[in-house]
Amino acid sequence: MAVYTEVSDEALRAFLGDYDIGGLIAFRGIAEGVENSNYALRTTGGDFVLTLYEKRVDRAELPYFLGLMEHLAARGLACPTPVRGRDGQALRDLAGRPAAICTFLEGVWPRRVRPEHMAPLGLALARLHAAGADFVGRRPNALGPAGWAPLLEACRSRGDEVQPGLMAQLEAQHAAILAAWPGALPVGQIHADLFPDNVFFLPDAEGRPRVSGVIDFYFACTDLLAYDIAVCLNAWCFEPDGGFNLTKARAMLAAYQTIRPLDPAEAAALPVLCRGAALRFLLTRLFDWTHTPADALVTRKDPLEYLRKLRFFAQVETAGAIGA
Amino acid sequence: MAVYTEVSDEALRAFLGDYDIGGLIAFRGIAEGVENSNYALRTTGGDFVLTLYEKRVDRAELPYFLGLMEHLAARGLACPTPVRGRDGQALRDLAGRPAAICTFLEGVWPRRVRPEHMAPLGLALARLHAAGADFVGRRPNALGPAGWAPLLEACRSRGDEVQPGLMAQLEAQHAAILAAWPGALPVGQIHADLFPDNVFFLPDAEGRPRVSGVIDFYFACTDLLAYDIAVCLNAWCFEPDGGFNLTKARAMLAAYQTIRPLDPAEAAALPVLCRGAALRFLLTRLFDWTHTPADALVTRKDPLEYLRKLRFFAQVETAGAIGA
Repeated sequence: MAVYTEVSDEALRAFLGDYDIGGLIAFRGIAEGVENSNYALRTTGGDFVLTLYEKRVDRAELPYFLGLMEHLAARGLACPTPVRGRDGQALRDLAGRPAAICTFLEGVWPRRVRPEHMAPLGLALARLHAAGADFVGRRPNALGPAGWAPLLEACRSRGDEVQPGLMAQLEAQHAAILAAWPGALPVGQIHADLFPDNVFFLPDAEGRPRVSGVIDFYFACTDLLAYDIAVCLNAWCFEPDGGFNLTKARAMLAAYQTIRPLDPAEAAALPVLCRGAALRFLLTRLFDWTHTPADALVTRKDPLEYLRKLRFFAQVETAGAIGA
Repeated sequence: MAVYTEVSDEALRAFLGDYDIGGLIAFRGIAEGVENSNYALRTTGGDFVLTLYEKRVDRAELPYFLGLMEHLAARGLACPTPVRGRDGQALRDLAGRPAAICTFLEGVWPRRVRPEHMAPLGLALARLHAAGADFVGRRPNALGPAGWAPLLEACRSRGDEVQPGLMAQLEAQHAAILAAWPGALPVGQIHADLFPDNVFFLPDAEGRPRVSGVIDFYFACTDLLAYDIAVCLNAWCFEPDGGFNLTKARAMLAAYQTIRPLDPAEAAALPVLCRGAALRFLLTRLFDWTHTPADALVTRKDPLEYLRKLRFFAQVETAGAIGA
């Protein structure tokens, strides 16, 4: 996956001619990533990742994403750093697609999340939020509360094929979440998609995992900082059997708060933010499930995984029950 | 694609503990390759490719493949070299699959084949044949003439769904090819799948392409050496519009023969070997097309591309018409 657009060698060489990163040594498609085409690129100047932005990405938003990554990297966050060409531009065209070269990050994403990953994750997320505080770009969260009604509408005709009665449940949850959605919480630049495959780890000198890099900022936006925590609680704290691992949640939240303590309103809002995050991933998965041709190349992720998470968070009464 | 089996970090670290190649630095799925799961692996000792052999590969055959690669590399061919662990073994188990680590090869495979690629290709193929001459392993070509009848049988019930009348054409071609198949030509170790995505190139000092590596030996076998040439004529010499590029064929064959001249019987047999190679790729594609669930993750390649090639080669009267 994640190679939707093939790049001819001539086009690649011409493209690299616009950069000062040396000559081409190797070029391989990367299997990871779903939205864009990614290539591992090695030149005499080092290792890079070349991304071709595919149709789901709005070209007008790329300067926000690339600018944010450059800003965060300049403040010491280990994230892909866009490489500027000789003309000073980081964004150009290749094979009919917007394209950019970023630095390569070392590390391995955890195929199985262990409790020891959670404190480093919390620290990395808080550092990301702190480093983004003075970034001037703004991007609304297209998949935030305002984006859910259109997604629901788009899923309505076929959603119940996935599970009878699903759409009625989602309509009810949607209304309840919107009614309880917090208004006045701290806002900043958030990653908004910080799943395990977007966080690389390497062992420190004692063999404990530390975060070596955070990747894939193409859902990043300007929204409630605590929503990023809610995404992580969804993405990192459920066991394969569906159980919520409170130990993992507490470890992440405690580490996060050593850098940015949550204010009481943020902590109190975590349960509904978690419900919103669960609904967001449920809806995009359901959209893909009902709109992707069955023979397409993309993996269709199970929407019902997030229905179970949504139900779990809907019965949570206090933030303490999910680690805050 | 080409990541069918996920490897947990713990399992990967334990696996690497059996080698003297240093500590884990990075680990990414590679999008290329269809049969197996491939990962780009970086350790403090260098860059490698980790392959997990999936269900199409017979474990009993892996020692032949790995032994051949080691043999060819020892004779100077740029191909993946299996890395032996501390116990001297190159083949072990990971995540429930047979697995091996090989060296990483620099270079880029040509997304668009140019005439300048063909002489280096011919030289690389002849060198592969020469380097394999004293390898003692033997593996029958499972997709050679003896393998076609079972494939035809397996495609019979649904093959005509791809094109009405297809199976009758293939039966006729199959009979004609078997009747004309040469018996007593030089035999050796052949790659048997030398498509452009299995040959890496880098520019030489003058900017001309040279072969920097040949990969994916998992169809390699002991068969007619000239059959490998026939595979390349199928895989490298047709233009996107379906036309056969005689200039490319001649360049490859001339370069090949500077190292291993074809004997007259081999040259004369090339047209039927090309028909056989076209039938082989047609049949495996047709098998995949008719046996792969429509929603599977693998790309189903068009079988009819090889019907057009088969028809082209069927009307060739002399080897000179295809470059020999």
